[in-house]
Amino acid sequence: QLLYEKLGKTSRTVDTDLEAKIESLRETQRKYNGILRLSSALASQLGAAQHTQRALGDAFADLAQKSPELQNQFLYNADTQRSLTRNGEVLLAALHFFNNSLNTLTNKTIEDTLLTIRQYEAARVEYDAYRSELEACGGNPGEAVLARIERHRRHYERLRDDSAVKLQLLHENRVKVMNKQLLLFHNAVSAYFSGNNVALEAAVRHFSVPGAP
Amino acid sequence: QLLYEKLGKTSRTVDTDLEAKIESLRETQRKYNGILRLSSALASQLGAAQHTQRALGDAFADLAQKSPELQNQFLYNADTQRSLTRNGEVLLAALHFFNNSLNTLTNKTIEDTLLTIRQYEAARVEYDAYRSELEACGGNPGEAVLARIERHRRHYERLRDDSAVKLQLLHENRVKVMNKQLLLFHNAVSAYFSGNNVALEAAVRHFSVPGAP
Repeated sequence: QLLYEKLGKTSRTVDTDLEAKIESLRETQRKYNGILRLSSALASQLGAAQHTQRALGDAFADLAQKSPELQNQFLYNADTQRSLTRNGEVLLAALHFFNNSLNTLTNKTIEDTLLTIRQYEAARVEYDAYRSELEACGGNPGEAVLARIERHRRHYERLRDDSAVKLQLLHENRVKVMNKQLLLFHNAVSAYFSGNNVALEAAVRHFSVPGAP
Repeated sequence: QLLYEKLGKTSRTVDTDLEAKIESLRETQRKYNGILRLSSALASQLGAAQHTQRALGDAFADLAQKSPELQNQFLYNADTQRSLTRNGEVLLAALHFFNNSLNTLTNKTIEDTLLTIRQYEAARVEYDAYRSELEACGGNPGEAVLARIERHRRHYERLRDDSAVKLQLLHENRVKVMNKQLLLFHNAVSAYFSGNNVALEAAVRHFSVPGAP
């Protein structure tokens, strides 16, 4: 049936509005996965930098002890690196929370709706195949044939309605989750990079980030 | 001669003060190389994070265009990532300047003094070897033997004095360089991580960081 459709040799049942929403959801899933890849890379790169900053803080502190001629210069660098390390742990907790939530949304919640959509698409192909067969035969179909087509039509319509409902619920859920996560991401990142550790800790508390120090 | 010294079978000429300074310089070179390894790692890790932040800024901006329902949330995240990327370039220029200066100090300037010191150490061993030989023979050394020992003594003393002078000049130079570089490192890092791009740009200008944007 799919082959005949591609060759333009048969008609297909189309729900334009629903198909546009499905295409848009697949695009959203692709783009959110792109964000997830980047934000995961960022978390691991900043994690590595913080590991280095901790070691650098210790090395500066060691040299402060052993270099009376540059004691203060080493000391204030040790202090800066160490305070950045502490704030960095709070930022990383926020980034991991963002990444986990985005992963759940993209690869579980959205994927679950796409599963229903794939069933809907299969049912549509099956229904259209029986319909085309009927049209090709022409004439007087038997009652059994008509009943079979009717059964496939109902199956197709039920899955179409399921898909539409799930898409609507998913839309609301997605906007809610992303609204929260994008705000957390922004607040945590800008608090960290403006040295505002009070705001940083307030952000992770406000969004109930698990594992925040 | 070195073997006999280790076995305690011969005497060695010792300049306690100079040898303590030499040991301390070797320790300083080791520790500065440790700092250099860490600060180079930090520069490359923050460079990678900035690369990711630039891509993340673009991805957020793209989603802002395509998601009217979350346009603002994506937009302010795009803005934050992009402004961090710009400041990050200034920070990286400062870190590279610090790393280059520390590398020159540790592996060229200090190394140059250590070269003279190694010549001094070799001259000391040679002088002591001739001295031991003379003691072992006992009796009446010929004039030629005495003249040879005298020549080695003068060679040793000249290199010892050279080493002492170079150590003193190096000390002053090292304190001057590190004083400047540690201040730059501190000012650039704390300006960047407090989101103070005016102070960050002032720091790289003040220290004439080359290649700063």
